[in-house]
Amino acid sequence: MSPVLLALDLAGTFVFALSGALVGVRNRLDVFGVLVLAGLTGLGGGMVRDVLIGAVPPATLADWRYLLVPLVAALVTFRFHPGLGRIERHINYFDALGLGLFCVTGATKALQHGLNPLAAALLGMLTGIGGGVLRDVMAGRTPLVLRQEVYAVAALAGAAVVVVAWSAGYQAPWISAAGAAVCITIRVLALRYSWEIPRALSSD
Amino acid sequence: MSPVLLALDLAGTFVFALSGALVGVRNRLDVFGVLVLAGLTGLGGGMVRDVLIGAVPPATLADWRYLLVPLVAALVTFRFHPGLGRIERHINYFDALGLGLFCVTGATKALQHGLNPLAAALLGMLTGIGGGVLRDVMAGRTPLVLRQEVYAVAALAGAAVVVVAWSAGYQAPWISAAGAAVCITIRVLALRYSWEIPRALSSD
Amino acid sequence: MSPVLLALDLAGTFVFALSGALVGVRNRLDVFGVLVLAGLTGLGGGMVRDVLIGAVPPATLADWRYLLVPLVAALVTFRFHPGLGRIERHINYFDALGLGLFCVTGATKALQHGLNPLAAALLGMLTGIGGGVLRDVMAGRTPLVLRQEVYAVAALAGAAVVVVAWSAGYQAPWISAAGAAVCITIRVLALRYSWEIPRALSSD
Repeated sequence: MSPVLLALDLAGTFVFALSGALVGVRNRLDVFGVLVLAGLTGLGGGMVRDVLIGAVPPATLADWRYLLVPLVAALVTFRFHPGLGRIERHINYFDALGLGLFCVTGATKALQHGLNPLAAALLGMLTGIGGGVLRDVMAGRTPLVLRQEVYAVAALAGAAVVVVAWSAGYQAPWISAAGAAVCITIRVLALRYSWEIPRALSSD
Repeated sequence: MSPVLLALDLAGTFVFALSGALVGVRNRLDVFGVLVLAGLTGLGGGMVRDVLIGAVPPATLADWRYLLVPLVAALVTFRFHPGLGRIERHINYFDALGLGLFCVTGATKALQHGLNPLAAALLGMLTGIGGGVLRDVMAGRTPLVLRQEVYAVAALAGAAVVVVAWSAGYQAPWISAAGAAVCITIRVLALRYSWEIPRALSSD
Repeated sequence: MSPVLLALDLAGTFVFALSGALVGVRNRLDVFGVLVLAGLTGLGGGMVRDVLIGAVPPATLADWRYLLVPLVAALVTFRFHPGLGRIERHINYFDALGLGLFCVTGATKALQHGLNPLAAALLGMLTGIGGGVLRDVMAGRTPLVLRQEVYAVAALAGAAVVVVAWSAGYQAPWISAAGAAVCITIRVLALRYSWEIPRALSSD
């Protein structure tokens, strides 16, 4: 894996782990429970991707750098969160960062394993939404991805940037950065301006 | 995969995706959330099966026909559902169709991958119940399979038809149809006549 | 697999299946629903481990001994539980036994598949907590592992005993027993004396 991709993947793991740890602290879990939730959120999406593309055992399980990251995120959250009241609204922004980084690294890893562009874009999206879904299911919350917000579509857009560029022969680091930026921008704007995708009309 | 099996598998994907989309519309998700839930419900059971038999990456991820089907199911549901009130009771019937088709294709694919009859029957059942379990867990409902209804046992019966016939040397298309028919019949009769399997007696 | 490890693994499957069946009976599921929940709880953790280390199809799917065990556990629970009121507090003790046995067999199988010590310890923990997490998510309960109790840390300690001994060149049966005993002791003491790991301070 290129150093740029590794750095993005570790950064994505860190911010997703933070979002998991914040949910854990919010739910008043103990320090080890917070650590488990941070680890699942940070590493879960990538593991689902690795299992689906047959890259087992997942590299993250055996790489101390990937394991250190949720540990640090959990301890930082556990120790330094200034107050539960101020935390809640930040979770969605950390989550947006993780989403942007993972949709890019997920799509890239799938392309490197020879999957076709369509499958790679979907795996990028799945890598992005997987950790958060595990976090929310474990914590008994309706997964963020299913609420009325622009979420999975942002991850798909970010992954699509990488896949389209790859199909056209481009694989430079700035393309990864551009893909992540597209996803994060869409997601943050959606949060900021409460963008909504149409829902089905109710007739009752 | 034989054309008959492919057609059954696509049909099963469609009806399961419909059931997922209906749950999504009922929960007032936006159009992309409905699409994600339709995709998970339609493709989730088969992916779990593929991961367990080592057929990764799952063919469905890379085959545009499998990806088109939940898209169509979600859009159809989103656009044409006549009213939420009338939808609810239909979900269980769409679900029954998907269950019947998937228990057959799941068992067949497991047999083709060299699994023994017992494992193939269980994988057929798992393929049938997997998508619905993912749908219900994501939507925060108690999985249908755990409620007091004849459900997993119908899938196991349908899979058993295919496995027993295969063990006896028969692999014709009408056997697939018979297996699906057995499962769907059991399930629909159970819904219609509120069949119940005994529960443990409560002594308190 | 050595006879000792096989016996421990089957025993772990049985007690986890019992804990799943008890939750099922408590939730008033029918006999087949109880069986499904017993099977998922007893076999789920091992399947997650097998998928992550690439040992697919999981041996448990094709081995009648592993399939017989949840069946017996479910029927025993279904028939002989003396009263729902008395059951509840036993669930945690059966769960502790399963946790202790699975963290040991999970870590050992991971080591046998060539994973490094750190990954093997984590997979041991994951094997231990996986079945219970599936059980609780399916039953709509907050997973035990996330509640304020010493849980995953006990599994990690038990797995660490096996991994450290293996790294030092020891693989005798008594080491498996010692690892299980460490995990079970920690967990049972934690239940008995309501041990708690610190939670984050709330400032609001």
